[in-house]
Amino acid sequence: MEVEKKLEEMGYPLIDPQSPAGVYVPAHQIGDLVFTSGQGSRRQGGKDYRGHLGNELTIEEGYECARRSALNCLSAIKAVIGDLDKVEKIVKVLGFVNSAPGFDQQPKVMNGCSELLEEIFGEKGRHARSAIGVNELPHRTPVEIEMIVKVKE
Amino acid sequence: MEVEKKLEEMGYPLIDPQSPAGVYVPAHQIGDLVFTSGQGSRRQGGKDYRGHLGNELTIEEGYECARRSALNCLSAIKAVIGDLDKVEKIVKVLGFVNSAPGFDQQPKVMNGCSELLEEIFGEKGRHARSAIGVNELPHRTPVEIEMIVKVKE
Amino acid sequence: MEVEKKLEEMGYPLIDPQSPAGVYVPAHQIGDLVFTSGQGSRRQGGKDYRGHLGNELTIEEGYECARRSALNCLSAIKAVIGDLDKVEKIVKVLGFVNSAPGFDQQPKVMNGCSELLEEIFGEKGRHARSAIGVNELPHRTPVEIEMIVKVKE
Repeated sequence: MEVEKKLEEMGYPLIDPQSPAGVYVPAHQIGDLVFTSGQGSRRQGGKDYRGHLGNELTIEEGYECARRSALNCLSAIKAVIGDLDKVEKIVKVLGFVNSAPGFDQQPKVMNGCSELLEEIFGEKGRHARSAIGVNELPHRTPVEIEMIVKVKE
Repeated sequence: MEVEKKLEEMGYPLIDPQSPAGVYVPAHQIGDLVFTSGQGSRRQGGKDYRGHLGNELTIEEGYECARRSALNCLSAIKAVIGDLDKVEKIVKVLGFVNSAPGFDQQPKVMNGCSELLEEIFGEKGRHARSAIGVNELPHRTPVEIEMIVKVKE
Repeated sequence: MEVEKKLEEMGYPLIDPQSPAGVYVPAHQIGDLVFTSGQGSRRQGGKDYRGHLGNELTIEEGYECARRSALNCLSAIKAVIGDLDKVEKIVKVLGFVNSAPGFDQQPKVMNGCSELLEEIFGEKGRHARSAIGVNELPHRTPVEIEMIVKVKE
């Protein structure tokens, strides 16, 4: 449980995966790949951010939201594989940023996810990534992220 | 052809896959995974919905559109694998919902896809899913969905 | 280096992959699949398009932008596999088009990517594709594309 210990030391204990808002699952293993559902930025305790980057939220707040979405992806992955030490490689991150008209700094927001993954997993955490702006996200979450990770068999 | 029989009994016969609007294919098998192209909500016969959730369409209409997009994904998959009984698992669903400003109920719309998949495939139909709002989609389709499914070899 | 020779003959020499705007990688190989990061439409030399389809840019300009994004994906793939002749199949293209309100011709824009892939790779270039409109993209790039390709082992 090295990865989870590190997360706790960093002050980011994992929270339970959110119950899906429908008949789907938080994550899913096929062969040695795990695909997560899109994860919003909710957290247990503390402020729950909602709204759009560019008018309602600062880039710093968006960065924090992307980090939380990444943590919620890890939480979903843990629910499937049991122990995050089994993660061999973060393959792909697809991140959607709730963006007011004129906001084009999605990469700075998504760095909240990418930098967390590197901090936790080191070289294994280096992923391919897309950062996309959208006009609306479920329940006004500022960031929604889905991941594909490779796990040890 | 159990799956297709069930679809017909439910009143959802598959329609022919749409001719792609360019030099690409409706779906594609690589190893034991099939990747579909994004499928809009068009149907043969009946009303063809167009426009945005949140002002032009109700959630119930959006739900119906997500179901149609799911059916069009299945139709594209069938064109590649011949028989939908070969589907072993719905792996991943990525759904885009044409959203007017302020509309944040994308999950309720995407349930039209998820609930169809469970009704048809049962446990095999349980997938990882992302529901994303966007400001515009091709030809004003209300919903566009792409899937990854695992098939028996 | 047949593929790159063809690209040069067509007047599309590859440019160096863009330094990622964060701790992630331009592309990534897992087994026989390569996943690219989302690639914008920047080019070396010549006009650098920015902005939205539907008001700031014509469909012809968007088509050209999609072609450039595709070239930037190929450049990222080359950085990982060394020689584009190793590409066995373009599996999946996911394209986001920066769209002003009311613009619904994303497929015509994305044809700039699809037609380039077919011109270069022939049958191997035929892919599954999604074309999605969004309200904002990083640094106002008109098009962002990510690809999955299969490579020879």
